[in-house]
This record gives sequence, C-alpha cells and structure tokens, in this order.
Amino acid sequence: MSQNELTDSLHTLTASDIVRTIHAGKATCEDVARACLARIEEREPEVQAWQYLNPDQVIAAARSLDARGSDGPLYGVPFGIKDIIDTCDMPTEYGSPIYQGHQPASDAACVALSRQAGGLLMGKTVTTEFANVYPGKTRHPLDPSRTPGGSSSGSGAAVGDFMVPLAIGTQTTASTIRPASFNGIFGYRPTYGDLCCAGVKEAAGSLDTIGLLARSVEDIALYRDVLLHATPTPLPLIHGTVLRIGFCPTHLWSRLEPSTAELLEGAADQLGKAGASLEEVTLSSEFNDVIEVHRAISSYEFARNFTYEIVNHWDQISLPLREGRIATGLKTDIKAYTEARRAAEADRRTLDTIMSSYDVLLTASAAGEAPKGLTSTGDASFCALWTTMHVPSISIPVFTGPNGLPVGVQLIGKRGEDRALLATAQWVVEQFQ
Amino acid sequence: MSQNELTDSLHTLTASDIVRTIHAGKATCEDVARACLARIEEREPEVQAWQYLNPDQVIAAARSLDARGSDGPLYGVPFGIKDIIDTCDMPTEYGSPIYQGHQPASDAACVALSRQAGGLLMGKTVTTEFANVYPGKTRHPLDPSRTPGGSSSGSGAAVGDFMVPLAIGTQTTASTIRPASFNGIFGYRPTYGDLCCAGVKEAAGSLDTIGLLARSVEDIALYRDVLLHATPTPLPLIHGTVLRIGFCPTHLWSRLEPSTAELLEGAADQLGKAGASLEEVTLSSEFNDVIEVHRAISSYEFARNFTYEIVNHWDQISLPLREGRIATGLKTDIKAYTEARRAAEADRRTLDTIMSSYDVLLTASAAGEAPKGLTSTGDASFCALWTTMHVPSISIPVFTGPNGLPVGVQLIGKRGEDRALLATAQWVVEQFQ
Repeated sequence: MSQNELTDSLHTLTASDIVRTIHAGKATCEDVARACLARIEEREPEVQAWQYLNPDQVIAAARSLDARGSDGPLYGVPFGIKDIIDTCDMPTEYGSPIYQGHQPASDAACVALSRQAGGLLMGKTVTTEFANVYPGKTRHPLDPSRTPGGSSSGSGAAVGDFMVPLAIGTQTTASTIRPASFNGIFGYRPTYGDLCCAGVKEAAGSLDTIGLLARSVEDIALYRDVLLHATPTPLPLIHGTVLRIGFCPTHLWSRLEPSTAELLEGAADQLGKAGASLEEVTLSSEFNDVIEVHRAISSYEFARNFTYEIVNHWDQISLPLREGRIATGLKTDIKAYTEARRAAEADRRTLDTIMSSYDVLLTASAAGEAPKGLTSTGDASFCALWTTMHVPSISIPVFTGPNGLPVGVQLIGKRGEDRALLATAQWVVEQFQ
Repeated sequence: MSQNELTDSLHTLTASDIVRTIHAGKATCEDVARACLARIEEREPEVQAWQYLNPDQVIAAARSLDARGSDGPLYGVPFGIKDIIDTCDMPTEYGSPIYQGHQPASDAACVALSRQAGGLLMGKTVTTEFANVYPGKTRHPLDPSRTPGGSSSGSGAAVGDFMVPLAIGTQTTASTIRPASFNGIFGYRPTYGDLCCAGVKEAAGSLDTIGLLARSVEDIALYRDVLLHATPTPLPLIHGTVLRIGFCPTHLWSRLEPSTAELLEGAADQLGKAGASLEEVTLSSEFNDVIEVHRAISSYEFARNFTYEIVNHWDQISLPLREGRIATGLKTDIKAYTEARRAAEADRRTLDTIMSSYDVLLTASAAGEAPKGLTSTGDASFCALWTTMHVPSISIPVFTGPNGLPVGVQLIGKRGEDRALLATAQWVVEQFQ
C-alpha cells in the first residue's frame, strides 16, 4: 500500500491497527483524525450519528497527542461516546431537551480512562432519550430508511460506518448488542459491575452497564483492559481444547425472523463441524418470566431514578417514555419490584449452574436485520434475558440477511469470565472467515 | 406544652413528629424551618456542620410548601444532604477544591424523592474530601476538640445537634454507622443496591450506598420507604417472638476500647434477660481477611473512578488521599482486585448461611467514643467487614462512654431483609428505655 493509499484508508483500520500504524511512524494522530473526520464529513448528512462534533477541537486534540508523543495503549485512536456519558469539554444532553447545552464539570470515568490511554475523543454519539426507546436522529448507514438500533444508535452507526473504530454505549436491555448486530460490528456487554459507570446517566442501576462497540474482538479486549485500568494483555489463543458450546434458542425462538433462525442453526452446525462440542440447551420455564422480571425492575428503577425530571420537566419528556417505561414504573409496586429482584437473583444462580457445563451459549442477538422505519429501534427481547442475568455477552457480525444487511450471533459467557468469552469469540470469528 | 414552648422546640422533634405536628395544624412548615434555622444560627459557629446553607432560600421553600399544602409523607421535614450528592439549586463541591462552586444541573434521585415527598432541603452538609478520609471542618457537637466521625461528618453532627431531624450520608467503609455512633443518633446503611445512588458522586461503586441519619427508628423506616419510592408503612411490632440475636465480637474485638467492649457485652446480657435468645457467633478465619479485601476493592475502584481528577487536578487532591487510597489503588493490580471481589462474593454467601440461624447480629459500631483530634475521623475497621458483605446495618445510640460521649451498638441484618432489621432495632431500643 502506498503512503497515500494508507492515509486515505486510516479510518477503516481497527483501533489496534491504528496504534500499530502510529507506533511504526507510518501515520500521525492528526492523520488518523483527519481520515475519520473526512469520513464523517462525507457520511454524516445521511447517517447523523453525532450529537456533538467539533472538527477544530478534534484536530487540536490530535496535534496535542502528536506533540505529547505518548505511547498509551489507545494512542491516537479516535473514539465516540454515547451522549449519556459526561464529558468535561463537550456538552452532554442525555438525548433530552431538558439538558440542551448541558456542560458537565468532569469526564466520566470511562472517558477519562480512554483519554489517559491516549485515545482521541471525537465527539458525542446520538442516544435515544435517556437511553430508553424514543429514537434520536441516526439512520442505518446501509439503508437510511431503517433504524441503526438503539439505544446506542450513534455509537453503533459510527463504528459500523467507519467513522471511528471504537465507541462506548450502554446496555440496560439490548442497547449495545442490538445496534452491534444491525450495524455489522462487534458489541460487548461486560459482566454487570465490572466496568465503572461513574459519570454515566443512570437508567436502571441494577441492570445498567456500559458497552463497547468495535470492528474486531482484539479491539474489544484492548478497550476492556483500558477501562478496567489493567495493563492490556492479548487474548489467549484457543487451541487443543474442545469448546463446549450450548446452542440456546430460548422460548423466544418463534419470534425470530425465519431466515435468522436458519442462519443461527447453520452457525451452530458449522461450529460443530469446526471441532466444537455442540449441545442444545433448553432453559427451564422460570426463564420464560425473565422478560417480565426485567420490565418490572427496569421500569421501577427508571421511574424512581428520574424523579427530578418527572417532577420538574414532565412536558419535556417524550410521550412514548411517559406512557411506556415511566407509566409502567409508577404502577409497579414495591412488592412486585422486590419480588422481581429476588427472582432475578435466583435465576442468576441457576444459570451459573447451567453455564458450568459450557464455555459459552450461542443465541440470537436480535430478531433479524435492522427493521424498516425510524420510530422504533427494534425488538429488545433477545437481550433482556441475558442483561438481567448479569452475564457478559458479545454480538459477532457473521451473516448477511435476505436484504443484504448484517445479522449478528450472540455468545453468552459466564459471570466474571469475560476474557474467556472474548477468546472464544475470537475462535468463532476465525471459523467464519 | 404551650404554643410558644412547642414552637421553640420544633427542632428537637423527630421527622415523624414534625409531620404529625404540621398535619394537626399546630405548626407550619415555616415554623419548623425557623426553629431549625435558629438552632443552626446558634450552634453552627462551633459545630460547622454545613457546607452550604442559605436561610432565605430555606424560608422561601418553606413558604412554598405551606402554600402548596401537600401532605406527602415528609411534608415540612427539614433535611440535610451530604455534599457529595447533587442538588439543582445549591452548589455541590464533593469536599474538594476542584469543584469549588460547582452547580449540578439536577437533583440526585434521593434529593428529588425527598422533595417530592414534601421534605424541605435545608442545605448541604460537610463531607470529607470525596467521602474519603481527609476531614472537613465539622467538629463534634458535644466536644469541639473531637471528630464527629466521617465521612458523613456534617450529616451526623447536624442530626445529633438537633439542627435537622434527618440527613442523608453515604457509606463505602464506615461513613454512616461511625458518625451515627459518635453523635448519639441512628445511622442506617441499607442492603447494597436497594437505594438509588444516581446523582451521588461515586467513591467505590461495588461498595457505595447512601446512608440515613435520624433520631428514631421510626424516622429511618419512614425515610427508607420514601427513598424506595414505596408507600410508607409502619414497622411490624415484634411480640410473641423470641428474637435470635448472634453476639458477634469479630477478630477486631481487642481493638475496641475496653469500656466499649464491656458496654457491648452488657448489652448482649440485657437483651438476653429481656427475652431474646443470645448466642455468640465466631466467624471463621476467612472473615479476618475481609478488611484487606475491602481495602483492595475500595482503593482499586477509587483510583480508577477518579481518573479525571487524578490526571487533570492532581495538585488539588489532598496529600493523605494521594498517598493513601489513591496510591494503594494504583499499586493494586487487576488480579488482586479481581480476586478480592471473588473472595467478597464467596464470603457474602457464607455469611448468608450463617445469618439464616439469626434474626440479627449484634456488634460494635466503632472502637468507642469519638476520639480527640480533628485530623482523623476515627477507626473505620468495625464497619468495613459488614459494608463489604452488602448486608444492612443500623447503629443504635444506647450508651454513654467514660467521657460522657455517645457509644452506639451495631445490628447487622440479612441482605434484603432491611425491614426486619429495623423492626428488631425498634425492639432493642425499647429494651434500653
């Protein structure tokens, strides 16, 4: 590749490749930033992934990185931050007119850790209103009549459309895994409680995590280490081990698009042929209730959490949020909420036992391709179960659906065994290459 | 009591009595506010419990409550908020010069819920720096040469000194139970995860809870219901049941002041004579390590969480915090942190099993009376174990120590059984009256 060709394609590199390219002296932080900005300039009118982006600010920050000459693990890597995450030098509006122009006093922990590692904050990506269901302006990069998924809509579209190699989202139901699946990228939801949420606007505290969006498993592992405040360490290679994969259709299987169900069953077969031990896992009937359990917990906590906004800014909250999550939360009583939390914890322990027989479970990330229309971000059910279980999961971009759009596969790991999940994901990716 | 006597003593009432007094038409919200303000005016020069307090703002808010005529469960009750908790109309400085004059955009959930219930926010109470060890200006109300405890120093002193009947603090180690014990009031740390922390500056996310400070168990139960967003319900009376109390000295018993150890052993005897079944509980040796486990978790998370402040405002962080918690956190590696979290979770499950044989455990709240000196807030060890276990606990003001200062008794409940703990606490209080 000539130097010109390299410079023109810097925005298509993964984060890890950007770090290597800069380290090798083949590009500067400013080169990378300019390539991403050029891509954004070209594509943003159609995609609208960004809530806030100031090219002058980005170039100044890139030059400052070049001058500083750090060699942090994300040195020179442009990243985007979902706009429910505080930044000290960019407005943070939480997807709500209530917070128009709001300027936090500090960076969220995940932003500060990214910057400390040498990352270059490009801007704030579009979120649905308070990371709930009311969509922002973002459109699917491959078909602007479709949703990019949500609630991390801008983060998913920006990474999928090669505007940035990395972005942070969050997940309270399906908000990282679903946009990852729709946008043909990797989306990782960590074990609940592993990655610090300080400075992230809370939706439902007992379910919220941040989520990572990237274009390789290597990048997910790298970014996870940075946010854990750990020294980045390459993932272990899986070789000489027979992976035990549980194929777990769940009771929602009939709600999948038929083509997606076929693709997933085909994926299981293919992994079996590649040497994994495949077994179908049928969850017992109490797991059928987890979607209701999730609804009770998330709605109760959301309505309690947003008391300030409900009391003081009711008219600036969207009707879908008022009549959906908030209404459900306000009519859920403490007894139902408490019982839901107990049921969730009991189910988590049951799932721990089930998972002890497998390395990962394989299931759907979403019902299928990104659906038509921009008034909804799609069906969240396929993630609600796993989110409530506090297990780590990753969506892997494996398939193309009948309309030529991406369809992901979701792998579920054991609580606290996120590196093992990512190592398995890397092996799975290789089987589909 | 004459009307004048009542008006003069409104600040000495509990929250529940204030609600009843206003409801009965014997006082207005403004009367109550003025009584508390008068007490503060008299005492604040010596005690220095308040970081921010604007009497005009308080009177205006009280008049607005009187005009509104709500009958919410905290109607007209003045309350204080530890200054690491966001308020939309008062500065929030987190006990740090970094945030001098900082004005958040919204109320923390606990503040909004208190106000929605009719509570009257008096002001912001002094916190140690970022709710860690470096003390603020507050002095013990009964002896200004002594610490009021920390990190919820102002909240403890303000409630203990009859400036407000209720205050919110937080607890990551001992920050509610210890100031409650030192100030002769009730301090309640809820089951981890029960009360929403949105809008509270995080210290160590996997340990932090808010905490409540009050002058009666009834008030604690009332305020807890308000913050749970539940309809307040009186505590069940304990009668006809033999309470199973486990007397749990722990391996730290030799660090207690001898007079405190005697008082606690006497308390156990007295409760046995009052009809409880008393048994000594010896924790197995793995619990001796929990203080180290707590140190690893809290330090690692604190250092990660405060990356923004560490990178951008190092010189404005106190030397004790830099050389203490932050230095420990930065030299703790991810492996040690991960192992500490696993050990804590294993110990929690072991303690669940132990607790299944008891209604509550009885133990020390602190080493003894508030110690002399204003450069430390006292020994936190007696709470670190229970905080790490995520169990609910309450400090009950039962004794007076050799210097005439209060000494509390700590009751430990089962995770998720906070109402049972409070009902038991009510029974225990009655045995000492």
